[in-house]
Amino acid sequence: MQYSHGVMDEYLPDNSTKLEQDWALQHPKDYLDVMNATIRNVLRKSSISSEDVIGICIDFTACTMLPIDKNGDPLCFKKELETNPHSYVKLWKHHAAQDEANEMNRIANERSEDFLERYGGKISSEWLVPKIWQILNEAPEIYQLADRFIEAADWLVLKLTGNECRNSCTAGYKAMWNKKAGYPSKEFFKALDPRMENLVDEKLSNDIYPIGAKAGKISQEGAELTGLKPGTAVGVSNIDAHVAVPAVGITEPGKMLMIMGTSTCHMLLDNEEKIVPGMCGVVEDGIIFGYFGYEAGQSCVGDHFEWFVKNCVPEEYMIEAREKGINIHKLLREKASKLKVGETGLVALDWWNGNRSVLVDVDLTGVIIGCTLLTKPEDIYRALIEATAYGTRMIIETFEKNGVSIKELYAAGGIAEKDEFMMQIYSDVTNREIRISGSPQAPALGAAMFGAVAAGKKQGGYDSIFEAACKMAKIKDKYYKPNQENVSTYNKLYAEYKLLHDYFGRGENNVMKRLKEIKRQSSM
Amino acid sequence: MQYSHGVMDEYLPDNSTKLEQDWALQHPKDYLDVMNATIRNVLRKSSISSEDVIGICIDFTACTMLPIDKNGDPLCFKKELETNPHSYVKLWKHHAAQDEANEMNRIANERSEDFLERYGGKISSEWLVPKIWQILNEAPEIYQLADRFIEAADWLVLKLTGNECRNSCTAGYKAMWNKKAGYPSKEFFKALDPRMENLVDEKLSNDIYPIGAKAGKISQEGAELTGLKPGTAVGVSNIDAHVAVPAVGITEPGKMLMIMGTSTCHMLLDNEEKIVPGMCGVVEDGIIFGYFGYEAGQSCVGDHFEWFVKNCVPEEYMIEAREKGINIHKLLREKASKLKVGETGLVALDWWNGNRSVLVDVDLTGVIIGCTLLTKPEDIYRALIEATAYGTRMIIETFEKNGVSIKELYAAGGIAEKDEFMMQIYSDVTNREIRISGSPQAPALGAAMFGAVAAGKKQGGYDSIFEAACKMAKIKDKYYKPNQENVSTYNKLYAEYKLLHDYFGRGENNVMKRLKEIKRQSSM
Repeated sequence: MQYSHGVMDEYLPDNSTKLEQDWALQHPKDYLDVMNATIRNVLRKSSISSEDVIGICIDFTACTMLPIDKNGDPLCFKKELETNPHSYVKLWKHHAAQDEANEMNRIANERSEDFLERYGGKISSEWLVPKIWQILNEAPEIYQLADRFIEAADWLVLKLTGNECRNSCTAGYKAMWNKKAGYPSKEFFKALDPRMENLVDEKLSNDIYPIGAKAGKISQEGAELTGLKPGTAVGVSNIDAHVAVPAVGITEPGKMLMIMGTSTCHMLLDNEEKIVPGMCGVVEDGIIFGYFGYEAGQSCVGDHFEWFVKNCVPEEYMIEAREKGINIHKLLREKASKLKVGETGLVALDWWNGNRSVLVDVDLTGVIIGCTLLTKPEDIYRALIEATAYGTRMIIETFEKNGVSIKELYAAGGIAEKDEFMMQIYSDVTNREIRISGSPQAPALGAAMFGAVAAGKKQGGYDSIFEAACKMAKIKDKYYKPNQENVSTYNKLYAEYKLLHDYFGRGENNVMKRLKEIKRQSSM
Repeated sequence: MQYSHGVMDEYLPDNSTKLEQDWALQHPKDYLDVMNATIRNVLRKSSISSEDVIGICIDFTACTMLPIDKNGDPLCFKKELETNPHSYVKLWKHHAAQDEANEMNRIANERSEDFLERYGGKISSEWLVPKIWQILNEAPEIYQLADRFIEAADWLVLKLTGNECRNSCTAGYKAMWNKKAGYPSKEFFKALDPRMENLVDEKLSNDIYPIGAKAGKISQEGAELTGLKPGTAVGVSNIDAHVAVPAVGITEPGKMLMIMGTSTCHMLLDNEEKIVPGMCGVVEDGIIFGYFGYEAGQSCVGDHFEWFVKNCVPEEYMIEAREKGINIHKLLREKASKLKVGETGLVALDWWNGNRSVLVDVDLTGVIIGCTLLTKPEDIYRALIEATAYGTRMIIETFEKNGVSIKELYAAGGIAEKDEFMMQIYSDVTNREIRISGSPQAPALGAAMFGAVAAGKKQGGYDSIFEAACKMAKIKDKYYKPNQENVSTYNKLYAEYKLLHDYFGRGENNVMKRLKEIKRQSSM
């Protein structure tokens, strides 16, 4: 079932209140509607009685946040606030709080805030505090009226159980909360804006529950909403990417999960908190209770290929694909897969959308080196695939260099599911075996596992996520093994990537930033 | 009229003798046939009597050379040699003498031969001695049988007049001859191969005639060949690119002519011999008698755009071009011309076919920097145009830095003739006015001017090329003036080009060569 309002990035539901650039809202009513219809549908289609459902858990995008009133109702449900954009859910990809994020980074740096290094040195505009600060700046009345600001993931648990059980995953990765240090200090929030000095006490909560804990039971209201039994166990919520980790069976250090689609998230556990440059975050209990969960990311993976197909594929190839009755990506992959490693003569930097890890720099841009008059579209296409694999290897090596070891790779998401050619390149470039998620819906499976843990063994569930992962996790039989001949050539090509990565990415030649600045000035 | 045999790069005229890779031959009979038909056609079509033709001169590609016998007849005319590829004309773009050129460069360097620096430090495989050496290596019988090796330009003068009058232009630019020093020494030729010790005395000639001199008169045989009067003056021959210089009115220092097509040649006069790194050659009397003629070049200009259109233009654009009834290049130029300077955010290195001047390195390859998910085909197309303009600016600056001044630019060739958008970019990038050849056939006009000089004032011609240029040279009324706002932005962009040019081109990061080596190994 689709959300009725979808992503609102142009108008509010009144179809007349226009949103500014970079906004992305959702309507919380959509969540309730979908919960109402979908759970009932799933039960009916699978012929499972609600009696047999022992527990559930929710995974959600994050930071996807909303202001609620004292009763837990979203402010946008109030007639008098429905034309105020700030009363709605700000979706994770709402990017309009960039000014606040920049200012926050400046102040945090100036004050040498400890928390910064746990986030690769930079807070993203997608996270909770920049979003709240934007509300305070642009709609102080909404800030005032909000009893709390809450992640949508936690709000749904509140709707289901009546309990506000904020989860350690979103708090840690998106709100700078730390198990030992808690949130940033009042002094820090005051330095941002005196009105935010008591933000945590007044509008958030210091009670954070670890992933894998039970949030409560489905209330009467929750039962009416979902069609599930009152009393059904509900787990503490989780982020979609993070909950996929146990779904592929990872519950211990040394195994990295890549969730590969338009962009890629990298998830990893370790026994210790290490400071890794350019990671998105390290959070104790953030993925699996008892471990430090690490997250890193590449901001552009599949998007490279979409860009390429839209902008760089000659008509002749489109005609060939139509004649063969195949998708243009498939045709390009067919052609690219016939090339030997190194045969393209190309190396690219995968920065068409900046670099998230390990450089954390949105102003970096894409590069192709090695073009000749004989360079073919499939050469460039392959070079782009390889570039994203080099980017992943760079992340892996950065973790290892900083004491977090990675022995095996796991992959989930659209690319992992469908693209054998690309996965083999990743295996060859990283010189590691890669195992693939058995479920095409790894986050949903992971959430179900946490639901089973919330129910517990006595109810037919499991007492720990470790046990649940043993029984419920799924990986495919087929996995990818590095081809040692390719590994050896890729080692040489990766050395070139690394040299260029550092030259363009670490300040030796800031040509990319200067070109962006020249471009900016040209449009003034 | 087309040459019947065209360029022979696969088979000899017998259609069974196969040529190896990189060969490019022509048949000298084609030259005679065309001369026979074309001059008569021109006279008829223009209703001019042969009585009114006072002089002619030939411009030709170079080094385009052939072995002839004692009577001046090409060896390939002999029945017994017609299946021997080495008996034919080796066209300028015959690239199969690369091994000989490499070895020659090695030996010349080892011996610190003075002549090297007059050719930017490197002898090309396209030039005369490598081609002769290849014959000696692969067909010593042809070397033996050849009474002389001669440029096709000079052979035609021999056919017309009965006189062997080798010209200073091909001798200087293609055979390492120098007005003061003559040819390289016997010791050098001996070091190449003892059998070549007396190459100059035995197979060439030390009698070199300056451009602008009279080679003789049309003989009875020449008159039968051409339909011209016996006694008509014939000028010393010339290279096509070089003879275009006076055709646009350049007969003094400070004015550079760019002949722009798939590649670009740059021609320039000066009063002194300066050593300019990476130039193709400096030759006294090589272009205009009394001056040092300089030549430089870019190995890939228009070829970039052909490559782009063939490999990188999306179907949507091809459809749009068809709907508008215009050529795809025109559509891309239309779109690219709407962009402001700097708006693409891109900078490219124009090395899709290596770099001729000023780096003289065929192993360099193309680069694009600054790609984002919003980069459009027209952005890349424009960046490629700009890159070739930066390449020209680099050549201009290298000349100036080494004491050869360039005040004004002139352009001839297909691009100069047709592409206003590109010419304006060249004017803005180089911050110089650019004047355009008035004749679309500048080399033919230049040759006609030298024909008029060979005839002399008494016969109705001119006594010097300076006088001929005053009266006969043509440039268009429209010329290009730099737009100072664009100049200022291009100065910034060129600074980026230069930084990357030196980083990738001067050894700081030899990634391009290493990628080529990896590619080579991958195909083994």
